[in-house]
Amino acid sequence: MESTIAYEEMRQLATRVFMRHGVPADEANITSEVLVEANARGHDSHGVIRIPKWIEGISSGAIKSRFLPRALNDCSSAIWLDGGQCLGPVVAEYACHLAVRQARDYGIAMVSVKNASHIGMLGFYAELMARSGCIGIIATNTESGVAPHGSAEKVFGTNPLAIGCPTLSGPVFLDMSTSVVARGKVVLAQRAGAAIPEGWAVDSRGQPTTDPNQALAGALLPVGGPKGSGLSFFVDILCGALSGTAVGKDVRGTFDMRQSGSKGDIFIAIDPEKIGGIDRFTGLAQHLVDQVRQSTPAVGCDRVLVPGEYEMNFRKQRMENGIPLASDLISELKALAGE
Amino acid sequence: MESTIAYEEMRQLATRVFMRHGVPADEANITSEVLVEANARGHDSHGVIRIPKWIEGISSGAIKSRFLPRALNDCSSAIWLDGGQCLGPVVAEYACHLAVRQARDYGIAMVSVKNASHIGMLGFYAELMARSGCIGIIATNTESGVAPHGSAEKVFGTNPLAIGCPTLSGPVFLDMSTSVVARGKVVLAQRAGAAIPEGWAVDSRGQPTTDPNQALAGALLPVGGPKGSGLSFFVDILCGALSGTAVGKDVRGTFDMRQSGSKGDIFIAIDPEKIGGIDRFTGLAQHLVDQVRQSTPAVGCDRVLVPGEYEMNFRKQRMENGIPLASDLISELKALAGE
Repeated sequence: MESTIAYEEMRQLATRVFMRHGVPADEANITSEVLVEANARGHDSHGVIRIPKWIEGISSGAIKSRFLPRALNDCSSAIWLDGGQCLGPVVAEYACHLAVRQARDYGIAMVSVKNASHIGMLGFYAELMARSGCIGIIATNTESGVAPHGSAEKVFGTNPLAIGCPTLSGPVFLDMSTSVVARGKVVLAQRAGAAIPEGWAVDSRGQPTTDPNQALAGALLPVGGPKGSGLSFFVDILCGALSGTAVGKDVRGTFDMRQSGSKGDIFIAIDPEKIGGIDRFTGLAQHLVDQVRQSTPAVGCDRVLVPGEYEMNFRKQRMENGIPLASDLISELKALAGE
Repeated sequence: MESTIAYEEMRQLATRVFMRHGVPADEANITSEVLVEANARGHDSHGVIRIPKWIEGISSGAIKSRFLPRALNDCSSAIWLDGGQCLGPVVAEYACHLAVRQARDYGIAMVSVKNASHIGMLGFYAELMARSGCIGIIATNTESGVAPHGSAEKVFGTNPLAIGCPTLSGPVFLDMSTSVVARGKVVLAQRAGAAIPEGWAVDSRGQPTTDPNQALAGALLPVGGPKGSGLSFFVDILCGALSGTAVGKDVRGTFDMRQSGSKGDIFIAIDPEKIGGIDRFTGLAQHLVDQVRQSTPAVGCDRVLVPGEYEMNFRKQRMENGIPLASDLISELKALAGE
């Protein structure tokens, strides 16, 4: 059974769940916002459905709250930040603001994060940096589930990356995994007893499969073969290797949240103000947006969208009509809030 | 008819061609090296076949030599560099060294380049920065040829990006266009009278086509649909919008070299020494390389390769056996060298 819940109601419920488990109000607020925003944008797999797992992580002590930022190096433009195993969205929001603030001085600045828990949907942070007037680049490595190109074995995570920038008509942002699809879509097909399209996954011998069970026993495929495989490799490098945590199969804590997170995150901010001025930049960015939007749609397409536009259109609908959620999940969250 | 020419012989011939057209020896050397390296790695479309067009650009005055670096802003970590319409590889090599040198101090540094001509194969620069001990990220925007996802119209270029890093066993690097294939592969099919695979391109109405003529009248497709489309969008942002030049359909000078280049390039260097030390970083990067190489190959694959390995294996063969080239092209290059 499915119910519909209003955005604000869902956000407050999520906040109460976190607060009931010892998370201070400000940290509960930002964490809830990141999760509910994922639902609002149609990325339900990254939304409040994850809360029970996060609460398991908090209850087991693997995820901590009361984040106290601690830089591990002495470099104002490339900061190595210890997340203290704290809630990912809390650490990530701090990292975004820090990267943007330092980019104001240095033109480009980076925050390399170790020991933060799952940071949720990356598009949130790309948009945040874009709203601050910067180009934002964010990536995170995750538990393995994706076979390198030509391999039968899970090595990479779905290793997502996001990029955003300001334009005259507001932020534009891309948020993508480097796999063809998210693991959640295969799980949904499995539950529905449906086949998956060819090209999503391989079985445990590395052969193409349309059977979701074999796919889950095997591995997801990287998007675009060697291209997605290479991008996924370098997300592991930029996040896990650079922050000095784990890479490839060693990454823990993004799926099973009772394990301490051993992945890394990277936040890069570029301030166009230092390269000829923000006005010129946003004008050119808008010009590209206009070119894309005004281009002739392919037969069968209504409109040509810019990155992030699909999600933001989706968000408008859900802000008006509410967020559809399984009734069981709402009950479970209310129980977790002690209601 | 095809001949085979030794790497060093080709490099010297190319150098003589550029010098005969007024390019000083050092600039002719690096330009030739970037082009011949593309041939050596199997990217013939980015190799010496381009020299006649580059010479057209030099002869017409659109491409200049004797590059004098001129920073357009006052920011040591985010440098805005005027390429003075000079030879792309000369400007790009300088930008790489500058980014690396500044990253030694700042941890991360960026060079945003305007007014450089075509910089050739990006993997060359990713490898160069990796050999200097840095993570290198390079991108460039190019003349339009790719339809945004859902569009029937060319807006983006093939907008390539490259990333490289050091490991204990040498540099690893990814060099990819954000389209499914390079335009050159469609031209080759057209010449051979062969069909192209579905998924490469659309006709001028935006419908899938396997006819190379219709594909060239239409547009190439971005890799992975909205993902490659989003990456291509942000290559235009990071290169054209940030450097204050042109974006999307306005980009000139990468295909028709007699037109002054209006694209931009970006070079980002990250020095892992500032984030916990280079030894720890290269150890983790090597660990990821080992995980990929030691993973079980999919049925039908011999070995699982890391990014750039295919190219470097190819290079070994061509260093031993020489570079196969059309005899006509060799004659044309000799004529251009006045021989």
